[in-house]
Amino acid sequence: MTAVDPRLSINQATIKYADLATALQVTAGAGVQSIGLWREPVNEVGLDIAARMLSDSGLRFSTHCRGGFFTLPHGPERDAALEDNRQAIEETATLAAAGAEGSTAVLVLVAGGLPAGSRDLVGARERVRDAIGALAPDAKAAGVTLAIEPLHPMYASDRAVVSTLGQALDIAADFDADVVGAAVDTFHVWWDPQVLEQIARAGREGRIATYQVCDWKTPLAADVLLSRHYMGDGVIDFGALTRAVIETGYDRDIEVEIFNADIWADAPADVVRRTAEAFGAAVSPHLP
Amino acid sequence: MTAVDPRLSINQATIKYADLATALQVTAGAGVQSIGLWREPVNEVGLDIAARMLSDSGLRFSTHCRGGFFTLPHGPERDAALEDNRQAIEETATLAAAGAEGSTAVLVLVAGGLPAGSRDLVGARERVRDAIGALAPDAKAAGVTLAIEPLHPMYASDRAVVSTLGQALDIAADFDADVVGAAVDTFHVWWDPQVLEQIARAGREGRIATYQVCDWKTPLAADVLLSRHYMGDGVIDFGALTRAVIETGYDRDIEVEIFNADIWADAPADVVRRTAEAFGAAVSPHLP
Repeated sequence: MTAVDPRLSINQATIKYADLATALQVTAGAGVQSIGLWREPVNEVGLDIAARMLSDSGLRFSTHCRGGFFTLPHGPERDAALEDNRQAIEETATLAAAGAEGSTAVLVLVAGGLPAGSRDLVGARERVRDAIGALAPDAKAAGVTLAIEPLHPMYASDRAVVSTLGQALDIAADFDADVVGAAVDTFHVWWDPQVLEQIARAGREGRIATYQVCDWKTPLAADVLLSRHYMGDGVIDFGALTRAVIETGYDRDIEVEIFNADIWADAPADVVRRTAEAFGAAVSPHLP
Repeated sequence: MTAVDPRLSINQATIKYADLATALQVTAGAGVQSIGLWREPVNEVGLDIAARMLSDSGLRFSTHCRGGFFTLPHGPERDAALEDNRQAIEETATLAAAGAEGSTAVLVLVAGGLPAGSRDLVGARERVRDAIGALAPDAKAAGVTLAIEPLHPMYASDRAVVSTLGQALDIAADFDADVVGAAVDTFHVWWDPQVLEQIARAGREGRIATYQVCDWKTPLAADVLLSRHYMGDGVIDFGALTRAVIETGYDRDIEVEIFNADIWADAPADVVRRTAEAFGAAVSPHLP
């Protein structure tokens, strides 16, 4: 067994069907030092117990997934979404405090798609900015960074109206850098002709809240949400992107987040081991 | 039957299984005035006969589809691709001359994806520029405009490494505007946060060689290439995009190009009628 990269973090979505106890156990058991959690498995056991389990695992906590869904017009549904995001901010702060030294209090935000029946993409994007404005004071008070995640443009209508890193940074620019940043996920940004300059900009502006890696391969899965692959199995140049991120001074954990039905069907311990190997081969050579 | 918009052009791919004779007949028969052709059905009958058939139809010719596939490294395969593009340029000039008054000699270029086994997206993009440079003198001599078509980023790895209108314009900027322009296709560009400013820029730079419309709807088809829909069936705001194009002074035909297995399975005459209705409802209200 080769050594596991100390900066690797397993995003829990990569082992989607593992409950929290299993996820913590197989991650730590593989020699991985950090984990990103999802709200549903945390809330399944309750926040206090989840925090204790995380603390007992000895793992760092890298991100909490996820808030967002900000594109609704004003009304009770939007109010409920904002309230749910405030809960997610609290969870993030609690888990980051429970994780090992070097944990980071980052809540990943997926903006949300067009409301049903709407064609107003410009308006939906404006509402994302408004919603982040409504949550920024809560995040600041809790010491949590909101990480706007640009999603690949193929999700622009139904999942995230924030489609490029440049657009995420334009939104973040209205807020303090320790309160609102961006998530840089290779799967979502690799195609962007401006990606290297926008990563450099994100670094200058202090906005890279998390760096996440997985690969792109065609044909896409029939459900395009599940088209993410182990690093090295597709076409992404992890060297260029990783070096660009590292050159900004980014020194946090690097998460692997894979949505893939075949990978989800494998045993979680096997997936974590395979993820660590892929990370070691495709990403580690480009780290300092 | 309502009047058919005089600027509507049926791109032959919308009625993929119609041969050239059928395509011309159902298009003209529906009262549509213009058509965009594909190379395969033209070459099935031969260029001279195709030109005569087009002339006899009384239709204008709006674009020829398609050239490109420019990302191969130097070698015999690339040479063959360039030679094939030169043939396509000649076809375009011949067909534009055979079409009714107002025909335009525009060859649509799809850049091509990453060569097999390659992860060098930056290099592939550079080779697109080089290939267009190799073809520009032929296009100029033939009086043909090469229209670089940015394709949706979900095709970046396997079909077109040119992913945004801004990127297409950056490539075109090295050449005369009447020789190299861009294709603006709503399906490919609607999601782009910069789309309105890039359309305005394309207009200022005289680069809008063709404007094509169809709609975006999720879930995407299992083969994402076939996810295009009639205007009005999805989420694209044809008002904002069409007005932006028209404001640049664009006064050419507007093509409808739909790849969709269900639509291809319908009778071509029905598809053309339905396309004209959808165009009249979604696009015509935004034309002068």
